Formats: sequence, structure tokens, C-alpha cells
Amino acid sequence: MQNLIETALTDLVISRIKAENSRNQEVLTKLVKHLHAFVKDVEPTEEEWFKAINFLTQTGQKCDDKRQEFILFSDVLGVSMLVDAINHRSKSTITETTVKGPFHAAAQAFEAGENIARGIEAERGETTVVHGRVLAPEGNPVANATLDVWQSDDIGYYDVQDVNQPQMNLRGIFKTNANGEFWFRTIKPAAYPVPTDGPVGDLLRASGRHAMRPAHIHFWIKAEGYQDIITHLFVEGDEYLESDAVFGVKDSLVIPFVKNTDTDLAAKWKVTAPFFEAHYDFTLAKK
Amino acid sequence: MQNLIETALTDLVISRIKAENSRNQEVLTKLVKHLHAFVKDVEPTEEEWFKAINFLTQTGQKCDDKRQEFILFSDVLGVSMLVDAINHRSKSTITETTVKGPFHAAAQAFEAGENIARGIEAERGETTVVHGRVLAPEGNPVANATLDVWQSDDIGYYDVQDVNQPQMNLRGIFKTNANGEFWFRTIKPAAYPVPTDGPVGDLLRASGRHAMRPAHIHFWIKAEGYQDIITHLFVEGDEYLESDAVFGVKDSLVIPFVKNTDTDLAAKWKVTAPFFEAHYDFTLAKK
Repeated sequence: MQNLIETALTDLVISRIKAENSRNQEVLTKLVKHLHAFVKDVEPTEEEWFKAINFLTQTGQKCDDKRQEFILFSDVLGVSMLVDAINHRSKSTITETTVKGPFHAAAQAFEAGENIARGIEAERGETTVVHGRVLAPEGNPVANATLDVWQSDDIGYYDVQDVNQPQMNLRGIFKTNANGEFWFRTIKPAAYPVPTDGPVGDLLRASGRHAMRPAHIHFWIKAEGYQDIITHLFVEGDEYLESDAVFGVKDSLVIPFVKNTDTDLAAKWKVTAPFFEAHYDFTLAKK
Repeated sequence: MQNLIETALTDLVISRIKAENSRNQEVLTKLVKHLHAFVKDVEPTEEEWFKAINFLTQTGQKCDDKRQEFILFSDVLGVSMLVDAINHRSKSTITETTVKGPFHAAAQAFEAGENIARGIEAERGETTVVHGRVLAPEGNPVANATLDVWQSDDIGYYDVQDVNQPQMNLRGIFKTNANGEFWFRTIKPAAYPVPTDGPVGDLLRASGRHAMRPAHIHFWIKAEGYQDIITHLFVEGDEYLESDAVFGVKDSLVIPFVKNTDTDLAAKWKVTAPFFEAHYDFTLAKK
């Protein structure tokens, strides 16, 4: 049976909050309400409470300029995608967004058609051409839009995780032409695990969950007068599409990477057949 | 209006949890349920979400071997006292417990009646005698019980916060005699703020809350065959008793520190009049 403190404490704590800023008042009040509801629902032992304190402490201490374990925590609990969903409602014609993830970094600018894969990855990987357009909601092309692109290599590593890759490998910045078109060469990305050597890895193991993300290419698209979008294109057929560790997959973002043996087309894209071709038109919302 | 992802995501995330350990299954499921409920209730912007990520990261990074900012976070949100209440239910005759706090440290063993105040604090502070008994639930004395005692000085600093205090100042370990009695000399503790130079300080300021704790002496009492208790004795009349920053005050733990001018009594306690006298009998639960 609950004692008097359990019954009264939540209201007492809330009654103490006298924030000057009304949004702070709302957020802090709701934090206490839901956090206390969680504690009352779980009824932790003192040992379990201390385990939680240690988990949170270690999660903070795992973070540095290359690693953000609290974002990963948010990602694997579906919180990042929930925040994404809340912030991008009812825009049915606009390209859907998904998590930014922890691997965005500075990249070099490329001309249309250039290859973002270098080093051993370029030789080892399966050559891929990615092309499409950036469009306004009515379907008009958006010229001079910026596409910031980043992806893993053919065995699932980003350059920032892998000392053997050239710097800024498999990332690049492209502009659309007057017809809103973009195209570039790369290699087919691979599925990969989120980092599992920290507290979030322990959480996934305790949950009986795998850490894999299906293969994808990241896009951060910006154009004057339009809202930015941060999204992925996923490789159709990937075995982890139904169980992405961070819940980032949306059906509209899964596209075929089509194997093509047409030597004329290969010549047009400046690749050698066979190659993979991925096509997608992005639609931006007006500001 | 909520979109499909908002409606379905919580159940999807929960459906992925397949923990081997049934308690893990319960705790992780309830974590997702309440955390998603909080996010849906608050509807954070992406900027607010990132502020929360940074707050948690900084809270973890503020922790070291002398500072536990996540415990402080739990304390100021009333979570520590809620966990305490859940774990110490319906034992009306037993001395009530309260938060352990972050200032417990190793202490030296003393004979009954010795003075735990040394250095300038002993000269400057108001001499106090604390005495009482440790009892079993039926009222029988508990001999050879250990009382681990720690407190702030007369201006609100613990030795571990203050390089000018002697090491292990204002802390000590006492044993009860055959009659279950303990007594020791000290100085009257002062009210003090919880540390406010970290993220939790920012949280308190954003909440419009003060950081003060009313003056108290900590006790951690152990005796063979009995359950440990961790509690405080609070100084009656303190101005912060009704607004303790960590919600640790319970009426049964507030006692008078009585000013006494009786020179005979002073001689008995080996102090000089006037002095303060605080009396309390602790009752332990059987194991």
C-alpha cells in the first residue's frame, strides 16, 4: 500500500515549480509528473535506483566530440523518431524525414556526377549511381539546392569510425542544376550496428534486441525559401528494414537499388557495367 | 493532430523488447511507455530535445568521485524520496528514513562522548551534545549498534567541500553501550545549499526554486539482526524545513536543539554552558 509520502510527493514537488518562463513551467511540471508515474509504476528497489543512476552517469561520460551516447539512447528507445514525427506532421506531399544520427561531419563540395567513394572502399564496393531531383510542393524543380550526403562503406563503417578510410570518404556536398537535378557516384552502403561498447549496448543486450540498422544513405537538403530536410534513402530488400534498431525506416524512403548491365547507360554515368542505380525525387516544404 | 507514427511507435518499440530477465522486461517496457507519454505530453521542438540531450550529457560529465550530479538531479525532483518511501512502507514504530545525500565519507571511530568538531569550526560553532538510544521495535535497548554520523559545519560546509577543514571533520562512528545509549559532542549544523554550479543548479534556477536544505545531522545506523537505517535529525525552527530542496524532511525527524545554561549538566557532558542539547531515540526494524 502507498504511504502518505507516495501519495502527496508528486503534487508537493510540482507545487514548488515557479518558473518565470511559461514553457519551462510546463516542461518541468510534466517531467515531474511522468517521472514520478514511472517510478510508482516500476517501484524500484534502492539497488535498482542506483543502477539507473550509474547507467545515466556512464551514458553522459561516454560522450565526447565524436560520440553522443545520449542521442543513441534516445534513438534506440524510439524517442528521436517520436520527436521527428511530432515536428513534421501532416505534410503528405513532402519527403518524409528521419533521424540525423551521429555520423554527420564536414564534407567537401563536388561537381555533379563525381564519385564520393575513394580508397580501398571505391575498389571493393559495388558501384552505384544515385540521381533524382529536388522539387517544390507543386512539382517545380528547385535549382541550386544543396544536398549534403553521407553513408557507410560496403562493410558498414563510416569514415569517422575507421582510421583506414581516407578523410571525408563517402560524404560530399552537391548542388542541383537548373532542372533541379542531382547525380553522383558512390558504392552501395551496407547495414551496420549502432555502437554497442557503451551503456546503450548494455541496454540493447538486456532488452534482447539487435543493434543493426538497414543500409541507407543520409541526405540533408537545404534550399533558399524552403525548409531543410534531414532524411535517409534505404536499400530495398535489406534484412533489417523491419527491425531498425533506431526505428528510422519509413516506407516512402525505401527505394530499389537496381542492378543495371546497360553499357551505354554506364557510359553516360561514367561507370562500368554492371552498376546499381538508385533514383529518388525529394520534395521540400516552403518556409 | 497526431500522425500514424506517433500513434503506433510506442507499441512498436515495446514489441521489440524480448528480455530474458522478466524484471528487465517490465522495467524497460515501462520506461518506454512513460518516456513516450512524457514526450507526447510536452511535444518538444527539435531544439528543446537537443537541449535535453545536452542537459543529460552535462549532468553525467559533472560526476566524479566527489560529486554525483545525477543523484542530485534525482534528489531535487523528489525521485530519491519517492524511492525511499516505496522501500520503507508501513512500519509506523520504526524511525523514518530519508535521503543519504552525497556527503557520506569514511570517518574515524570515537569513544562515547568525544567531540567530532575540530579546527576553527570547533571554536566558532555552537557547542551541542547529541544523545539518545537505539531501540528494538518492542523498546528494548540495542547494545553495540554502530552510528555513523556526519554533518555540515556552522556555516553549511562539509569537510569534503572545504579544503580549510581538518580531514574527517564533523563525522564519526560511535557504538551504543549495554543500555543502547549513545552520546557525542559536536557543533550545531547550519542550513546549506545543494551544489548549484552544475546542470542541476540551472534546473533549480529555471524552476524558480531555491537550493537550500534545512540544518541536519546525518545518521547511518547498523546493528546485528536489524535493518540499517539512513536518516537525518533536523533542527527545529530552521527556516527551510517547509521547503527543503530535496524534499527530505519528515515531521518525526525534526527535533528541538535546546539551549541549556545548567553548569552541572554541562560538566556531566564535558562542555561549558551555555550549550545546545539534542535528544533522539532511534528504533530499528528486525531483519
